Amino acid sequence: MALKGACIFGQSGGPTSVINASAYGVFSEALKNSNITQVLGAAHGIKGVLNDQLFDMSKEDPRELELLKNTPSSALGSCRYKLKDPSVDDTDYKRILEIFKKYNVRYFFYNGGNDSMDTCNKVSKYLLSQGYECNVIGVPKTIDNDLFGTDHCPGFGSAAKYIATTCAEIYRDATVYDTGAITVIEAMGRNAGWLTAAASLAEVSGCGPDLIYLPELPFDLEAFLAKVKAVYEEKGNCVVVISEGIKDKDGVFIAEYANKDAKADAFGHKQMGGSAAYLANAVKEATGAKVRAIEYSLMQRCAAHCASKTDVDEAVLMGAEAVRAATSGITDKMVAIKRADSEGYKAEIQLLDLTVVANTEKKFPLEWITEDGTGIKKEFFDYALPLIAGENPYAWEQGLPRFANLKKVLAEPLAE
Amino acid sequence: MALKGACIFGQSGGPTSVINASAYGVFSEALKNSNITQVLGAAHGIKGVLNDQLFDMSKEDPRELELLKNTPSSALGSCRYKLKDPSVDDTDYKRILEIFKKYNVRYFFYNGGNDSMDTCNKVSKYLLSQGYECNVIGVPKTIDNDLFGTDHCPGFGSAAKYIATTCAEIYRDATVYDTGAITVIEAMGRNAGWLTAAASLAEVSGCGPDLIYLPELPFDLEAFLAKVKAVYEEKGNCVVVISEGIKDKDGVFIAEYANKDAKADAFGHKQMGGSAAYLANAVKEATGAKVRAIEYSLMQRCAAHCASKTDVDEAVLMGAEAVRAATSGITDKMVAIKRADSEGYKAEIQLLDLTVVANTEKKFPLEWITEDGTGIKKEFFDYALPLIAGENPYAWEQGLPRFANLKKVLAEPLAE
Repeated sequence: MALKGACIFGQSGGPTSVINASAYGVFSEALKNSNITQVLGAAHGIKGVLNDQLFDMSKEDPRELELLKNTPSSALGSCRYKLKDPSVDDTDYKRILEIFKKYNVRYFFYNGGNDSMDTCNKVSKYLLSQGYECNVIGVPKTIDNDLFGTDHCPGFGSAAKYIATTCAEIYRDATVYDTGAITVIEAMGRNAGWLTAAASLAEVSGCGPDLIYLPELPFDLEAFLAKVKAVYEEKGNCVVVISEGIKDKDGVFIAEYANKDAKADAFGHKQMGGSAAYLANAVKEATGAKVRAIEYSLMQRCAAHCASKTDVDEAVLMGAEAVRAATSGITDKMVAIKRADSEGYKAEIQLLDLTVVANTEKKFPLEWITEDGTGIKKEFFDYALPLIAGENPYAWEQGLPRFANLKKVLAEPLAE
Repeated sequence: MALKGACIFGQSGGPTSVINASAYGVFSEALKNSNITQVLGAAHGIKGVLNDQLFDMSKEDPRELELLKNTPSSALGSCRYKLKDPSVDDTDYKRILEIFKKYNVRYFFYNGGNDSMDTCNKVSKYLLSQGYECNVIGVPKTIDNDLFGTDHCPGFGSAAKYIATTCAEIYRDATVYDTGAITVIEAMGRNAGWLTAAASLAEVSGCGPDLIYLPELPFDLEAFLAKVKAVYEEKGNCVVVISEGIKDKDGVFIAEYANKDAKADAFGHKQMGGSAAYLANAVKEATGAKVRAIEYSLMQRCAAHCASKTDVDEAVLMGAEAVRAATSGITDKMVAIKRADSEGYKAEIQLLDLTVVANTEKKFPLEWITEDGTGIKKEFFDYALPLIAGENPYAWEQGLPRFANLKKVLAEPLAE
């Protein structure tokens, strides 16, 4: 017999353009499931459970819930909270169990990246150890695409689409004069180069970057300067995309050099600066060219107006599948995507053990990088183009995004 | 009797998302006008005239020309070339006249901002002084919206839409944790605050910035820090938008402090940095909060995927109106927009003397800034919301922008 009780959904880690689309998938499916007696949304992820800040999602206007597909960032609030090992300190776990009992929570859905799947896994194992029946399913999200086991991750497609689209547009802008310019663009991805590689997709628009530097390969400043100079001298322009996570041969982040050498100014403030700004300066010194540094910054993870329809649809689907899996008796798994072995692109849902996916990072395949280390091969295009396909029908009002406005009514435990 | 001969169209100054939409307006109208014998596009603005680099636009695929409405930046190439006073040095003017005679150019259309209208004006006056019949019409463009005489300028609406949309999305992202953050965003506009003010429109999405600093008012660092701190302490978050052009009471750009105090690093490179990065550091020192600096950078002028439909339509219209005015015998004018005195928003075309518009800057009205200098009044919303209304139907292919690909066939003068 299926478990009957409340469910909690929480959002954790860095936001994406489609994390709320997964929330919509969970809520819409859970609200119509007869085994789920109450649909709760946790404020700021697991912190909302610990602080007993749970919203009653049935109190929300269905139209607003649907607008979650149109709303970037985490509508319930997010957190970066690492649960301790329960054998060292089980205070948090006891509190979680207390809250779960208070609301008769029998389903727990947690949406996040590596660390969040670790949280999910720990909660699941603890509840099991206490003999408390509760099905726990992780819903993946990360723009970085570095989650192990899944073909790709919701959030990546939209970030990739923004990065490639914007790269194409910047390329057109940055090469408009006949007087030459060098542009250094910085994408996120501390350890994995998926997002940086996504800029190469701009080639489809005829505006791909000239050079790309991923964190998977050691970065050599002199070789970089020589390459940039050569492209600039040949073409009169050069557009380079680098990862924020590029490191030199000693494993030191280039960003660390950028910040370490910064001197305090007249006000005693230290200049911060990313890798792109740092390298742009180096390029300027080496070439004398007009140089500009650009960071995709937060826009790459929140530009929902440029979301991929494929990504939004998959994010919704994975939320709904999590509910379907849990209510059919499955626990301790993460919803994942398997690419069907078919002619065109087709995503299939699979369920992976949380223990396996938590804390394992998926790097960009070295064999998809060109021999000279500054380009991306066709294999990646075949992989990534289906993920950025289609434009999400964005809701605009008065020429501006119409985001979901949630009431966030605090929940009361249901009477037995 | 109407003049019969070739026309030249050139693009000049900084690109926008819709400058090519005006090009489409000019080309499509000129190609069907019986008084225009040849439609020429100048490579890199007036430099293309001086270098005899003129493209025969009749050789282009009409579908590609139409895609100009979808293509940011200047498809023909741009320039920043200032013509000398002809009484000091008339070399360039003599060359222009030579080229005009070579191709029997009787219509000259120049698309740009203040400086380009000055070029337009000088060429027009010189041709007149030489008794060479040629009708000259300026087509305005600038994201900065600082062109005098016109209600607003093509390019501004799309930049404003991108800035406000992105501000709303960033706001959602930057306030997602309960641990607090301060975000300093930098918009373009060296002397005029129109673009910075546009961020305030994000209020319509419920995500307007907390504080706004325009270049029209002197910037005081201590007052700024106190304000940011107060908002942060009250709300737990603070999103500030500043103009790149903010100056202190002595008229010194804040960006100058940012660069002046920069020390050379270990490689001998100087750290560059915008006003936002500089102020973010100051805020970090003052508050200890998590602080992030974001620049809209080139994206604000090239993010055609987020263009305003109103802006694109008006840009096309103004190009076409320039051709209609010139071929009906008008010269020495700039096409401008007058807001009709009607119920809803309605744009009317008017023609202004080039002498009047060239080199006059239109600042943001001080009376539209709130008393404390950090907010924008309703009058600006009434002014700006119609300009960002509607979404341009963007052409996507494989999930990426489909830009116009012009053949750029060099023109041959027609036989007499």
